[in-house]
Amino acid sequence: MEYHISKIRLETMVDGIFAIAMTLLVLGITPPKPTGSQAQAILPGMVFDLFPEIFIFIIAFLILATFWLNHHRHFHFVRSVDSRLLWINIFLLISIVFIPFSTDVAGDYPEVQIAVLLFHTSILIVGLFFAYQISYISKSVHLCDPETDRNFLQSHYLRSMLIPCAALVAVIVSFVNPPVSLIVYIVIPVGLYFLIRSGS
Amino acid sequence: MEYHISKIRLETMVDGIFAIAMTLLVLGITPPKPTGSQAQAILPGMVFDLFPEIFIFIIAFLILATFWLNHHRHFHFVRSVDSRLLWINIFLLISIVFIPFSTDVAGDYPEVQIAVLLFHTSILIVGLFFAYQISYISKSVHLCDPETDRNFLQSHYLRSMLIPCAALVAVIVSFVNPPVSLIVYIVIPVGLYFLIRSGS
Amino acid sequence: MEYHISKIRLETMVDGIFAIAMTLLVLGITPPKPTGSQAQAILPGMVFDLFPEIFIFIIAFLILATFWLNHHRHFHFVRSVDSRLLWINIFLLISIVFIPFSTDVAGDYPEVQIAVLLFHTSILIVGLFFAYQISYISKSVHLCDPETDRNFLQSHYLRSMLIPCAALVAVIVSFVNPPVSLIVYIVIPVGLYFLIRSGS
Amino acid sequence: MEYHISKIRLETMVDGIFAIAMTLLVLGITPPKPTGSQAQAILPGMVFDLFPEIFIFIIAFLILATFWLNHHRHFHFVRSVDSRLLWINIFLLISIVFIPFSTDVAGDYPEVQIAVLLFHTSILIVGLFFAYQISYISKSVHLCDPETDRNFLQSHYLRSMLIPCAALVAVIVSFVNPPVSLIVYIVIPVGLYFLIRSGS
Repeated sequence: MEYHISKIRLETMVDGIFAIAMTLLVLGITPPKPTGSQAQAILPGMVFDLFPEIFIFIIAFLILATFWLNHHRHFHFVRSVDSRLLWINIFLLISIVFIPFSTDVAGDYPEVQIAVLLFHTSILIVGLFFAYQISYISKSVHLCDPETDRNFLQSHYLRSMLIPCAALVAVIVSFVNPPVSLIVYIVIPVGLYFLIRSGS
Repeated sequence: MEYHISKIRLETMVDGIFAIAMTLLVLGITPPKPTGSQAQAILPGMVFDLFPEIFIFIIAFLILATFWLNHHRHFHFVRSVDSRLLWINIFLLISIVFIPFSTDVAGDYPEVQIAVLLFHTSILIVGLFFAYQISYISKSVHLCDPETDRNFLQSHYLRSMLIPCAALVAVIVSFVNPPVSLIVYIVIPVGLYFLIRSGS
Repeated sequence: MEYHISKIRLETMVDGIFAIAMTLLVLGITPPKPTGSQAQAILPGMVFDLFPEIFIFIIAFLILATFWLNHHRHFHFVRSVDSRLLWINIFLLISIVFIPFSTDVAGDYPEVQIAVLLFHTSILIVGLFFAYQISYISKSVHLCDPETDRNFLQSHYLRSMLIPCAALVAVIVSFVNPPVSLIVYIVIPVGLYFLIRSGS
Repeated sequence: MEYHISKIRLETMVDGIFAIAMTLLVLGITPPKPTGSQAQAILPGMVFDLFPEIFIFIIAFLILATFWLNHHRHFHFVRSVDSRLLWINIFLLISIVFIPFSTDVAGDYPEVQIAVLLFHTSILIVGLFFAYQISYISKSVHLCDPETDRNFLQSHYLRSMLIPCAALVAVIVSFVNPPVSLIVYIVIPVGLYFLIRSGS
């Protein structure tokens, strides 16, 4: 009765918006524009001052790439898309598209708490939509491939929570030291990677 | 005699332009750029002042997402694309591409009537092209899947009119209170949703 | 011996770049940014002053859409892509990507000849690459579908010359009246359309 | 046990990001914005001053197009994507997305060494990731098509080193003459082309 959007069409839209959002991140790095005869002398210092902005650009790119991989892992089990899954994805995309903005602000003011909080909150919101999506997919037997491995899905759920958990820690750290809170996104995954490796 | 563009190629172009326009909406949110030593003190206020811009960004994203879904619903019945349907789509795309601009202006001046009118008009124009498209598709038996359900198409026509009608109401409301006119796009669909639910 | 890029991959790249260039045109429309308490009073005039910019935006969009259709018509006959055809396309894409820039300048200064000349020249260069492409395709029997209709290809060649010819006329007109030279792109195709209709 | 991303999905993401990065290059060309009554008189000079920026835009576009072709040549042999190849590609994409920024800076200050060094370094980093990718692909028999021609792969490796080598030469030249170092990217490939032609 209701015309449902195909899974492939939705994935194409999601991939397209991820690709554009990931590329727009670069517009957040403010190109230095010294004028007059002192350009030659000032520019080297201004280029070195870009490193915090470039660092946050790389962090945000890696986070978006991880979200994109998560989306693929989630949709690997999906056969058909219903209205609710469609709208979860649209809200997911709004929060994805917002990240180049929050990255821009955090890159300009990494030492100001409100700026990095805006960044952490935007990551947290994407993470919560992803958590909701995977929990909805795992509950919706009618949307999934009948051969879906439930344990596998469960492990994806835990994986999907990695970035929102890092964002939560980053929020707390930002009250102590705003710039350091941005490093949390690197420390937690790398730490976990070595923990898992040493454990196995 | 005439080489017609394939339906798939046209849909890919339409999907691509929708994805880019939806992502470019974020460039309309002006990043706060306080300078000097007072950045720390001023930035929190500037971030909270962003909320009207972020609200309009979300509204515009939801409207574009709905238009994209409508386009898919319309093209679900189409088998081949003739010259007129092609050019309807090109004018549709021009009006879609214009929306990040009108959203930017409305987000910067939500309290000025001309700014929100520019936004409402741009939505209205997209809506009218969509209404023309669905009426052309429903009249063009030679372009459609022979098994097209006419009643179904009719119901899509009514659905497609939802946003242009909301835009018309928003135009009227903007004469009384410009910022409130932006909320119309939320009130009407949500209102209708509950009306339909309580009726069924 | 040489690995040739597939036709489909190249077309996807071409379609993607066309979609992005067509959407980036909107960034050329400068959003009015009045400040202070007089915003309410000044904005209406500033919005009406946007009309020349919006007009050039629409012209440029229609030209790019026509170029995109031409590209599809050209590649309809192509079976495989050799090195030369690949590099023709790369230079074609450079000139396509340049158009949002020349449109931006022409939209800001429609009454200054150098600005509109930059626009006309950028259109002319795309047109010349297209003319070279179609003439190369029609000469390269080994790249084409064996059932290619030569007369049909010839008619496409003439069609492809429509916009470069309009650009040439526009260059001449720009010496007399720069803003009027932008209307040439509308007058010539619409005029030809009615000429052909009345003749058949 | 591990869900691997499909080769096609990854290629689509790579193609999308290349297309967007190549198109965003145009935003690096700063549109001249003279104000007041002297616009008419100043604009011609400002347009001619754009030529260095347009030249670097073309160089960067050609480099990105060559990288894109290299990527296709590399992935031609690949059958499946493992975790490492995936992450090589994500870091490759970060460095690709950074190029519109470094091109913008180099285009604004072609006579300042630090600006052109930023450009050369960004090209060099992409080149090194590509070199690592092709060496990883050629070592990973389990990821490749069993019919992969090893000599062929070797020749691709040499080809892939062309741009990083040009970038290295450009770094050296930039210590002598920054603007000339940008021409290296043209001189080396064109020189090699004629050398190979005269040799065969």
